Parts: sequence; C-alpha cells; structure tokens
Amino acid sequence: MLETIFNHRSIRKYKNETIDDEILNNILKAAIRGSNTGNMQMYSIIVSRDETLKKQLWESHFKQDMVNQASVILTFCADINRFNKWCEQSNTKPSYDNFLWLYNATIDATIAAQNATIAAEEYKLGICYLGTTTYMASKIISILDLPKGVIPVTTVVVGVPDQTPELTDRLPIEAVVHYEKYKNYTKEDIKKLHQEKENLEFTKKLIEENKTENLAQIFTEKRYVKKDNLFFSQEFLKVLKEQGFMNNY
Amino acid sequence: MLETIFNHRSIRKYKNETIDDEILNNILKAAIRGSNTGNMQMYSIIVSRDETLKKQLWESHFKQDMVNQASVILTFCADINRFNKWCEQSNTKPSYDNFLWLYNATIDATIAAQNATIAAEEYKLGICYLGTTTYMASKIISILDLPKGVIPVTTVVVGVPDQTPELTDRLPIEAVVHYEKYKNYTKEDIKKLHQEKENLEFTKKLIEENKTENLAQIFTEKRYVKKDNLFFSQEFLKVLKEQGFMNNY
Repeated sequence: MLETIFNHRSIRKYKNETIDDEILNNILKAAIRGSNTGNMQMYSIIVSRDETLKKQLWESHFKQDMVNQASVILTFCADINRFNKWCEQSNTKPSYDNFLWLYNATIDATIAAQNATIAAEEYKLGICYLGTTTYMASKIISILDLPKGVIPVTTVVVGVPDQTPELTDRLPIEAVVHYEKYKNYTKEDIKKLHQEKENLEFTKKLIEENKTENLAQIFTEKRYVKKDNLFFSQEFLKVLKEQGFMNNY
Repeated sequence: MLETIFNHRSIRKYKNETIDDEILNNILKAAIRGSNTGNMQMYSIIVSRDETLKKQLWESHFKQDMVNQASVILTFCADINRFNKWCEQSNTKPSYDNFLWLYNATIDATIAAQNATIAAEEYKLGICYLGTTTYMASKIISILDLPKGVIPVTTVVVGVPDQTPELTDRLPIEAVVHYEKYKNYTKEDIKKLHQEKENLEFTKKLIEENKTENLAQIFTEKRYVKKDNLFFSQEFLKVLKEQGFMNNY
C-alpha cells in the first residue's frame, strides 16, 4: 500500500484516454476526506475536461503539453466564498477575509490535492502538479470564473500515463529531517548532503546543457531567477488583495 | 490505501506507547517522496519526542492533551535556509526570500505532511493536524530553534490511538466540486448543501451547548472570532517578515 507513495513519479506524457466517471468520483471523494481546519472545508475543486477550457488552461500553465494531454485538470482552490454565503444566510458575520484564513485554506486545499493524487495513483493513473498555478493565478481566476474569496492554490493533471520515468532523486533523509530541534547546517553538512545529488549522471548532463558551473546555478540563474521570483510574488499578492484575502492588514 | 484515506479520523487520545524507529523512518521516507517545486525540497521536518520539548510544544499548541500523549510530534516547515546555504556555497545568489517561495514551500511542506499522515495511518497509527502551528509560529520557532528562512507550516502528532471516533461529516461532494468552471452558489444552493450537516444530532447538541441560533454562529462567534482572526493574521505576517520571507514587497 505504501508502495503507491514510494513509487510516485510526476507524469508529463499522457495517452488520449478518458478517466472513468466512477473512478474520478472516488478520487474526488478521497480528496474531501482529508483533514481540514475546523471541518469548515474552505476549499473548492474545479474539474475541467472541456477541450476549449483545457486549451485555455494549457496556455496559462506555460503551454506544458501534459495539460492538454491529460484527461482531467483539477484546480484546487482556497474558498471562503461558500462559507461566507452560508454565514450571511445564518444571520452572522464571517471574518475570514484575511491572511490567516488564506493560509489555513491553502493547507486544506493542498491536503485535499494530495489525497486526490494518491487515490489517482492507486488507480494506476498518472498525475502531475502544476506550480504555474500561483504564477498565473489572475488568468486562471478569469478562465475558471473564480469569484471574490476564491484563489487557485495548485493544479493536478490526471490521466493515463504514456511514460514510465525514472524515480526522481531526493536528498538523503538526514538532509530534511531534524531530531528534537532544528540543527543548523555547517558548510561541511551542506557539502556532504548534496554530494550524491551533484554526482548524478543526470545532474552532470543538466549542467552541461545549461552551461553553468554547478547544479545550484541552474536554479538561481536559469529556472527560478530573481526577476521572475519578485514579479510573480508581487502579482500573486496583488491577486490575493483583489480576491479579498488581505483585509485588515 | 483508498480505505486508509476513506477511514481517516483525527485522533485526539493516544496510548502511552512509542512508535517503532523503523516505522517512523518509513513514515518520514514517505513524506519526502511527495511532489515538490522543482525538486528543490524547500522544507524540513522536525521530529520531537523529548518529554521536556513535548511539554513546551504542548503549551504552544493551546495545551491540547494529545500533544503530550502522542509518541511523536512532527513539525513540517517551509525552509529556504538549507537551499540558500547550498547556493551560497555554489558561488551563486539565491532569491527565494519572498512570498512566492513561501507559498511554494508551504504547499510542498503540506504535501510531505499528508504523505506522512497516510503512511502513519497505513501502519494503524493515529494522527492529528494542529492548526495552532500558524497561530503560535513565533513560540514554535523559538522552541525548535528555527533559524531565519524557516517557518513552521503545520504540525502532525502521531501515536497509538486510544479512541475510535465516528467518521466526521463532510458537505456533500457537489458542495465542493465544480465541473468545468466555478458555478457560484444561489441562496437555495447554500441552504440545500448545508441541510444535512445542520440536521445532524451532533450539530443540534453543539448548538445547544454553545447557546447560538445555528451552526455557522458557532464558527463566527465562538470558535474563530474576528478579534482572533485579525490578531493571528498580523502575528503570522510579522513572523514571516522576521524570518525573512517577505523581502522586496
């Protein structure tokens, strides 16, 4: 059973096959069984399968082919809109339009997403998370008609895999796990903990392709550069304000 | 695995029994197999078992008894500290000290937490998420020695269950799932989608105990009130700034 978790790989190529409705429904039911703050379920899941819509989402997600190929696109959202409406109809005033509840709802939406992911993989389906969701939040809000109080947190594409990639490497467990308290890293620790990763054939090939001195430079100078990080940070904060999540602050 | 997901309940009472080291290690290994942004693994997991430390954490987590009782306390953190150090030793300048990467790392830490949770439940252990982590971030940072660049995102206690609570209710699946695009709720929808929840015996008992008119008022007027929401929002934003996550904004 744990095997599903240990065998997880992100799938970026899908067969042109649809997912059975009953299976999809079980994946969604698995999503909502996850823990959530106060059992308030401040999230929504948008299930997009329409070809025109998928094409629009594909454009937003930096035109990654898997978005078009996958059978279903699941957009997991933080959602205080439904809860607000319920409160207002219940003769009381909600006050969840602030950063604390964006954060709580983000965690809850992510727990739901990971439950859906594992359920999908149990059905031998492939999945891939799309980090572009926060980058392009404004576009996605407009494509999916998300009202005020709703923010796209993350997206998971689900489909029938058309590839079996190698398991991705991870840092050794002692790199991310601390016992009792946080033990800060010495220079020597950092070097030792990244050695295996840096020595992979895959890494060496990447460095050659990217013409950098080392792996870290690929992240800082090619993939996630300062200009983009600052731009998308500011864009996302703007969206949070527009969607009514940063009141009274 | 699907059964494990469908049978999830939060456990708030634990037996005085420790978790086998090998099982704990598998739970942690499951955590780090989850998807994460760019495979940069910008999270850390603090495993606390020391009794003195547990007591300090118990105090921070609003003195919920399960924190003392559970065998292990796992604090999942967003962590750019390790990555920063690696970049600096690799002759390059990181720029992840901003909101975008706090958000990415928060999602990644939560995916790791949910993997750990499901793995623990596969071993018939009990778990409970602690939402108090964000409320008391500043205290937790000081107890666990979290350096700049590290923020506690969520906490999961793990132990041998000493209760078998009923499955918690959820809204009907159509309350949280939207097909194709977001379909905003009419008054009638809101009423219908909350009817089952409002009619539960459990809900009626809660309303009686809390002396409110209805369930929504318990959330807004008793459990998560405006004053606290605003206070903890501001506290958490202050912590994010202090820990170096809101630069250039």
